[in-house]
Amino acid sequence: MQPAAILEAALYVSDLEEAERFYGEVLGLEHISKVDGRHVFFRCGNAVLLLFNPDATEVPPGPDARLPVPPHGARGDGHLCFSASAEDIEMWKTRLQTHNIKIEADFEWPKGGRSIYFRDPFGNSLEFAEPRIWGLD
Amino acid sequence: MQPAAILEAALYVSDLEEAERFYGEVLGLEHISKVDGRHVFFRCGNAVLLLFNPDATEVPPGPDARLPVPPHGARGDGHLCFSASAEDIEMWKTRLQTHNIKIEADFEWPKGGRSIYFRDPFGNSLEFAEPRIWGLD
Repeated sequence: MQPAAILEAALYVSDLEEAERFYGEVLGLEHISKVDGRHVFFRCGNAVLLLFNPDATEVPPGPDARLPVPPHGARGDGHLCFSASAEDIEMWKTRLQTHNIKIEADFEWPKGGRSIYFRDPFGNSLEFAEPRIWGLD
Repeated sequence: MQPAAILEAALYVSDLEEAERFYGEVLGLEHISKVDGRHVFFRCGNAVLLLFNPDATEVPPGPDARLPVPPHGARGDGHLCFSASAEDIEMWKTRLQTHNIKIEADFEWPKGGRSIYFRDPFGNSLEFAEPRIWGLD
């Protein structure tokens, strides 16, 4: 028995409007929903990327909350990696640079496959990588 | 142009041996690799779950580092959700309780689909949910 897939991954951000702009317009992710002051969610393939304001999500739900979603919230620079083909990585590099986003690292892994790294506006470390760096298709 | 999929999601932990036990033995994820003091990685479907010690990963790579992986690191309670069918969620609930892991929340979403929530040993909020809560298969 083992989990089949990651359905949701989360990052924490300090400005949801800026997160909406960056992840929606620069990265082009499909917007799912937003709750002012709390979160903005995007679809990414068969999963969902959750961007949370930790000031809001670390507050436990009240006794009469509609849905008792447990509190969470982190601070510091998180990490997330998107899957991309070798061709896509090259296109993403150009696109990010067009938006004046610095490519912080760009290298081939010893066993094959390329990664490029950049930051979201909040310092989270984002990456595009070929799935073969993990032996995945 | 938009990212095709999430290839890596990260959580931060304070004890890698305990993380290895919990994610490997309790959740049954497939172990990929470990670097003592820095990380332990698990495969989950077509993605990878990265468990990092932020004390190690927030240190920038030296000028002669083999691979210039950018620093990152967060503290606080992160969040991750695994995909599961309705049947699997029921089995996971039993399995977690067998391991004396508290089910912190268990509910149906208004538009359909069930989620259960629990914590890893470090306080990260973990969830099993049906993909249909997001309109996904």
